[in-house]
Amino acid sequence: MPGSGKGEFARLLSEKGIKVITMSDVLREKYEKEAKSGERLMDFAKRMRQLYGKGVVAKLCVEKIEKGSNIVAFDGIRNWEEIEEFKKVGEVIIVAIHSPPKLRYERLLKRARKDDILTMEGLIKRDWEELEMGIGNVIALADYVLTNDSTIEEFKSKAEELIKRIL
Amino acid sequence: MPGSGKGEFARLLSEKGIKVITMSDVLREKYEKEAKSGERLMDFAKRMRQLYGKGVVAKLCVEKIEKGSNIVAFDGIRNWEEIEEFKKVGEVIIVAIHSPPKLRYERLLKRARKDDILTMEGLIKRDWEELEMGIGNVIALADYVLTNDSTIEEFKSKAEELIKRIL
Repeated sequence: MPGSGKGEFARLLSEKGIKVITMSDVLREKYEKEAKSGERLMDFAKRMRQLYGKGVVAKLCVEKIEKGSNIVAFDGIRNWEEIEEFKKVGEVIIVAIHSPPKLRYERLLKRARKDDILTMEGLIKRDWEELEMGIGNVIALADYVLTNDSTIEEFKSKAEELIKRIL
Repeated sequence: MPGSGKGEFARLLSEKGIKVITMSDVLREKYEKEAKSGERLMDFAKRMRQLYGKGVVAKLCVEKIEKGSNIVAFDGIRNWEEIEEFKKVGEVIIVAIHSPPKLRYERLLKRARKDDILTMEGLIKRDWEELEMGIGNVIALADYVLTNDSTIEEFKSKAEELIKRIL
């Protein structure tokens, strides 16, 4: 979910030398090449999913896996159909990063990136857009849930422990 | 999710003197009074939700709250509409108990209660029945996620800690 800290977890994986493919970057790359004039990224993503199925972004990501890769991390899964795509090419371990909604909203308001919606209402609306895509199913069926509700140091230490356990 | 250990968490709350209302018991009570001849519990629940809305079981549970109650726990939330019902009568704190699917299936196969479906396929099917009701959204938006993936002792100790933090 937005503001949960999954980006931080991806950075830690990257520091350990694990190739991380950020799913939104792969989608954006396609968007920049193929979007209709004036089409928003979110609408482009919806159109792609309607045209090529709900697993389309995962399919694009699988194409990015370099030959001979052993472990690859995908940051930003949105639905179970994407998991099914990844299962076609290897063993899948799902790690969900969880933070309480209140804390996520606080972080997002603080972070305020260009594409962040800045009202509480907007953040709740965005949560539900993600949930409607099916992200809740992926979290419910995750192999590991890492809680990120205290300090960044504690999260990092728990994340390091989990990475050791998985690898 | 089935086999996650939420019943164990409810027992711990109960031991601390907190009133626990088991949502499936409340549903079953209504089922025993009002089900059509031969109607399965699951089908009765579906019919109730169609007739009275997805929050219907929560509405029935709210009627069970004794006057003057301060804290009440509800075991077995299935969808966000139920959360909305509980919010009408007080502050809601959502605790999700998470276990990796593989471990849940192992436990359920071991436990094998009368109403447990005993094949792996059946368990996966039941997971998706729960997910289709919207339980993934509740897990994704939980205030706390408690992981139950090692020993019962470790789970109990984490649960005790969380209960202290909440109360």
